[in-house]
Amino acid sequence: MTEIYLDYAATTPVIPQVIEAVTDCLKNDYGNPSSMHRLGIQAEKRIKDAKNQVSHLLNAAPDEIVFTSGGTESNNMAILGAAYDKKRRGMHCITTVIEHPSVLQAFAHLEEQGYEVTYLSVDRNGIISLDELKKSIRDDTILVSIMHINNETGSVQPIRQIGAVLNGCSRKPVFHVDAIQSFGKLPVYPEQMGIDLLSVSGHKIHAPKGVGALYIRKGVRIKPILFGGNQQGGIRSGTENIPGIVGLGTGAGWIAKQQNERGSYLSELKNRLVKGISQAVPTAVINGSRDTSAPHIINVGFPGLRGEVLLHALEEEGVYVSTGSACSSRNRKQSHVLKAMGLDNQLLEGSIRISTSYLTTLEEIEAFLPVLTRAVARIERYTRR
Amino acid sequence: MTEIYLDYAATTPVIPQVIEAVTDCLKNDYGNPSSMHRLGIQAEKRIKDAKNQVSHLLNAAPDEIVFTSGGTESNNMAILGAAYDKKRRGMHCITTVIEHPSVLQAFAHLEEQGYEVTYLSVDRNGIISLDELKKSIRDDTILVSIMHINNETGSVQPIRQIGAVLNGCSRKPVFHVDAIQSFGKLPVYPEQMGIDLLSVSGHKIHAPKGVGALYIRKGVRIKPILFGGNQQGGIRSGTENIPGIVGLGTGAGWIAKQQNERGSYLSELKNRLVKGISQAVPTAVINGSRDTSAPHIINVGFPGLRGEVLLHALEEEGVYVSTGSACSSRNRKQSHVLKAMGLDNQLLEGSIRISTSYLTTLEEIEAFLPVLTRAVARIERYTRR
Repeated sequence: MTEIYLDYAATTPVIPQVIEAVTDCLKNDYGNPSSMHRLGIQAEKRIKDAKNQVSHLLNAAPDEIVFTSGGTESNNMAILGAAYDKKRRGMHCITTVIEHPSVLQAFAHLEEQGYEVTYLSVDRNGIISLDELKKSIRDDTILVSIMHINNETGSVQPIRQIGAVLNGCSRKPVFHVDAIQSFGKLPVYPEQMGIDLLSVSGHKIHAPKGVGALYIRKGVRIKPILFGGNQQGGIRSGTENIPGIVGLGTGAGWIAKQQNERGSYLSELKNRLVKGISQAVPTAVINGSRDTSAPHIINVGFPGLRGEVLLHALEEEGVYVSTGSACSSRNRKQSHVLKAMGLDNQLLEGSIRISTSYLTTLEEIEAFLPVLTRAVARIERYTRR
Repeated sequence: MTEIYLDYAATTPVIPQVIEAVTDCLKNDYGNPSSMHRLGIQAEKRIKDAKNQVSHLLNAAPDEIVFTSGGTESNNMAILGAAYDKKRRGMHCITTVIEHPSVLQAFAHLEEQGYEVTYLSVDRNGIISLDELKKSIRDDTILVSIMHINNETGSVQPIRQIGAVLNGCSRKPVFHVDAIQSFGKLPVYPEQMGIDLLSVSGHKIHAPKGVGALYIRKGVRIKPILFGGNQQGGIRSGTENIPGIVGLGTGAGWIAKQQNERGSYLSELKNRLVKGISQAVPTAVINGSRDTSAPHIINVGFPGLRGEVLLHALEEEGVYVSTGSACSSRNRKQSHVLKAMGLDNQLLEGSIRISTSYLTTLEEIEAFLPVLTRAVARIERYTRR
């Protein structure tokens, strides 16, 4: 049975050139970058190269990149670190109701400590209102954290306009963007977009799990959340994960190339998918809007079906998709994102996420569509009994 | 030029079987362990296997292991997590003056928040006094954190006796042990030794950088320091670093085998080293005591020399050692550990750390000794000019 992986928003296979770079590093560059001798300096050079590769994709400077253990740490570090640093100036933060748990839970932790958090709502397409944002900004607002691409629905927030609103404030709050789903998929230029902090994760761009990065715009101060040997300029203590960092750098280089050379490829796949799904299952509903959604994520509702049942029916035929995000799929709660978009119960229960990457082929999409038709028909047959 | 690496306490080369396991995982097990489909379950299985391998070496249960991004996070998670959880019971902690920066800086962070910390002193051999410990314990003492093997000098604390003292308390403080240098080198059995939390790092046992573990004894509660998707039972959010975890598990399996089969090997190397150094450089002073020090770390002072100059002189001949720990060697301060042992200025400035592993050969030791003699003589010649 040929397997078709359509769950790239959960995680991505590591591409051969990344595996090669990581393996080479494991074999040859085992020095501790803090060591004074040659092996240390060699390891430090690998970090520098990776900073170049990651910053290049962001039009940023290499020393604006700090490496972390992944997206969760990047988001925690940005939000907690900025809030702790600006505490004296104010204790009000703004985010949205559709953020990833690593953002929402970091804010919940701040609320326990007396911070006040405003959660912006979203419309039927999963997009925030700039007006609501403007009205929410106060004198004591120190931090605004808004994700670029939503991991469940692919909805894209108007980051550039949000940055412009914040740049217009007399006392600009720190602007953090969770770009974990957009890095390498959509253009993200922090300086042009008014972004101060931006989170990246390795395993969403065909690099290994366990590594991520945080862009920190020059001059923006945050407090560390891990304490120790003052590696990475004191902002993130702990011996650097050199093989992971080398993998992230290589993955960033690869995805930059894909984005440049095959920029419209994911959109073409998506067009075919959307059209094909409507034909394969005429009752299917695409959640969110085509105009304001990412090229690699489609959230589709099948009224009357349970998403989880469909997931396993597809799995039986070697197709991998997800319900909601991987990060919360195990606890089987209704999606807080679809709920916030005002979807009715049928869609809340009956939606799946299909996500692609530059590795996805048109042949896979064509092979997937009849499988989807069969799976839906099979479930409906059982349900009717 | 044949290179001789004698800086294993800073970091270790990744052994071929670990590289193979990590590469296999990167190639074949890319699923997100939180995914509901087969690829997720397969990835979860890899975590379970690694938990078995790590817990086995500790005589612990697999579900007492949580994976982290490394030793610094493990130490931070243990100390901050325990202190935050027990805050209502008390705000007094005990540690020692010779801990690793990732412990000392975590406590400094607690002090900023109003916690009180008692720092136990050490004797000339770098060992704490059980009497001083007993006198320091108060009704509001919630946490005691004492390292097993010191990373700079190899001094070994009487962990079992400390555990017994704490077990005798009417309200036992949480006992955390930084076992990053001892895991796989000396027996560490948390349950027998009264240990509640124990930190482990991958890159000290020939596994990759960027992964570590924290043993949390069943029934001991700590608060998380990273917030998000509630992976690992909610105690450590963030998509698990599967390749790193697989590497740590494989490394733990390997080092357990070495410890079982070649338990005295490191001590034999050390005997030869100590004897050889005294002959090679008669003025050399071994810092700390033979009886209470680890088998793989030797700290040696060369009165009248600068450790840094000797390090580079050795490096010119392909020998890698360190001054102090890698984690602080870049900032060229005097060692807080040697200072605490009461060493005079000559030794503070003129000491180096030589550290071995099961990969070190007797031939390397024999080859190192004449290099050391030559390097010292060369420096003395220049200094005399």
